[in-house]
Amino acid sequence: MKKSVETIYGVHAVRALLLRRPERILRVRLAAGRDDPRVRELCELASRHGLPIERAEAREFKQLLGEVVHQGVMAEIDALPAWTEDDLLDALGGATHPLVLALDGVQDPHNLGACLRTADACGALALVVPKDRAAQLTPTVRKVAAGAAETTPVVAVTNLVRCLTLLKQAGLWVVGAESQANKRAQDVDLRTGTVLVLGAEGAGLRQLTRQSCDFLVRLPQLGAVESLNVSVAAGMLLYEAVRQRDAGLA
Amino acid sequence: MKKSVETIYGVHAVRALLLRRPERILRVRLAAGRDDPRVRELCELASRHGLPIERAEAREFKQLLGEVVHQGVMAEIDALPAWTEDDLLDALGGATHPLVLALDGVQDPHNLGACLRTADACGALALVVPKDRAAQLTPTVRKVAAGAAETTPVVAVTNLVRCLTLLKQAGLWVVGAESQANKRAQDVDLRTGTVLVLGAEGAGLRQLTRQSCDFLVRLPQLGAVESLNVSVAAGMLLYEAVRQRDAGLA
Repeated sequence: MKKSVETIYGVHAVRALLLRRPERILRVRLAAGRDDPRVRELCELASRHGLPIERAEAREFKQLLGEVVHQGVMAEIDALPAWTEDDLLDALGGATHPLVLALDGVQDPHNLGACLRTADACGALALVVPKDRAAQLTPTVRKVAAGAAETTPVVAVTNLVRCLTLLKQAGLWVVGAESQANKRAQDVDLRTGTVLVLGAEGAGLRQLTRQSCDFLVRLPQLGAVESLNVSVAAGMLLYEAVRQRDAGLA
Repeated sequence: MKKSVETIYGVHAVRALLLRRPERILRVRLAAGRDDPRVRELCELASRHGLPIERAEAREFKQLLGEVVHQGVMAEIDALPAWTEDDLLDALGGATHPLVLALDGVQDPHNLGACLRTADACGALALVVPKDRAAQLTPTVRKVAAGAAETTPVVAVTNLVRCLTLLKQAGLWVVGAESQANKRAQDVDLRTGTVLVLGAEGAGLRQLTRQSCDFLVRLPQLGAVESLNVSVAAGMLLYEAVRQRDAGLA
């Protein structure tokens, strides 16, 4: 694991982190002249935790972040260290019925951020993505994840199929989402250690990824539209896992 | 109901409509010089349905659509007519256990589009939004909805609370999502006629909307992040309704 200072931005992302993980924040920076109830709340929260608040010019925001909707709010953070595959395997040992989300080639940073946020809300241990041809953890992803990037680790792996095999060897079931699957999500037991795998929108799971799955399940598809948005599909699958776990082991 | 010609854009949205509702397309327009396998597939699909394909200059795309990612593909469509509140109430009569989604003040067009797409996938009868201070059906929403705007009607109402009351009088249960609710989604029977209501991100349901609900339910919130993205929350609630309905009436 390596330590790294990252910048997050946007009122929601900074607020969520101030509320839940203030110890990860190094300093809060606000655009000069920005003053409204939401910013005052952020200042109060930061003061309560003894965090420095600085003002910065709009051009500094632009220099640091580029053309994004930063809402005049950013924070320097001691980022959650990226996990290696080994870190993930180590963490499985200490987890009871771990739930892991894996995305097979999702390229849109908004989808990755939304999946990370939902994975966090559903208590997932980590989110696994391939290192190549897939979205990685960028400032945009951190913003969309609304703080979840600082609490749920992302594991970028060289070979997703190999990683799934290692997780299987560690005792987890690998469950992939596919629109043509015979089983529905609720037909498969997701209560013990489980990896949920979703493919890229349109393309779905790659052939080798599909073959790595112990079960394939489908999600609701009653309408005229071809496929669910991947972050919504991830939300449904994670919801189903949490629902089954809440209902208790048989 | 009024008839209207609208423009949709983007490879995915146009493709979905060509596959599922070709009768709604009046003509397909492609950027001059655009030629790749995905565009050739669209041309094939359009030809199969005898639809005219025209080439247009990039500046025409810009003039018509503004600064959007149109991917050099647009289509003129005979848009699904917007429903009035009366149309919605009329449609309830012909529906068995209708499922309706209502959004209380969602302002982001991407969230509205994503909700519409999921509502369609889950077989919802319609999506209800307030006329004021909420996202409406724009070309951006149509694109994100990936075709669903042409199959699942959006009902913009003057007074959401009044509309919920009318739906209740028509026999539907009104179920709102709230993070502090005592019941979980799976604790409430969503198998008969139901309106699922979600509030804006951050603010949640407005006070009067909350009071209109027969039940309030919460969704998974195990992590450090404050709230789920509204389109993911809508996906979870709609999923739960479909799951219960698949399991059959008790």
